[in-house]
Amino acid sequence: MIKVTVMYSNTPGARFDHAYYRDRHMPLVKTRMGENCKYYTVDKGLTGGTPDAPAPYIAMCHIFCESIEAFQSGFGPHAQELLADIPKYTDLSPVIQISEVVVG
Amino acid sequence: MIKVTVMYSNTPGARFDHAYYRDRHMPLVKTRMGENCKYYTVDKGLTGGTPDAPAPYIAMCHIFCESIEAFQSGFGPHAQELLADIPKYTDLSPVIQISEVVVG
Repeated sequence: MIKVTVMYSNTPGARFDHAYYRDRHMPLVKTRMGENCKYYTVDKGLTGGTPDAPAPYIAMCHIFCESIEAFQSGFGPHAQELLADIPKYTDLSPVIQISEVVVG
Repeated sequence: MIKVTVMYSNTPGARFDHAYYRDRHMPLVKTRMGENCKYYTVDKGLTGGTPDAPAPYIAMCHIFCESIEAFQSGFGPHAQELLADIPKYTDLSPVIQISEVVVG
């Protein structure tokens, strides 16, 4: 199993609509990817390592797939539509990481 | 529910023992935190957003707790022991984020 982690840096002044991300964007990703996306999770940044430190990322999602190939098969054909949805909830460009799920 | 995400930057030349992290450090964290840690997950960085881009983080873990207070209650009394274990698997200093679990 792999996960694709999408991270939005907590940049002062940046726009991020958490409700749209939770209620519209991520369900759209799941609908388009179908079974190639096993499930996904969404995080909203609260703080850094101490209560007064800002969260490094304002939001993250994690898309769980059987393999990198499954992710590409699910996301690739819909990439244009899904990427075009990003400006509806943020003006940030995400940082992306693909990881092996070592402990799931 | 909240999650504490611990991220180790993928710094060229840095040391990271994934086996120790998976088999020794994270189980120690869970043992010491007890029920204050509901569960945890571990990721090993593979790539960035494209196959030829490096992963931003060489490894991450996510510690799931009912609340920030539960994390502090579980981790705080053992912080010295748990932080002293870090040099056994890496010479990196982690980036830490506490997030609200919006979709779990």
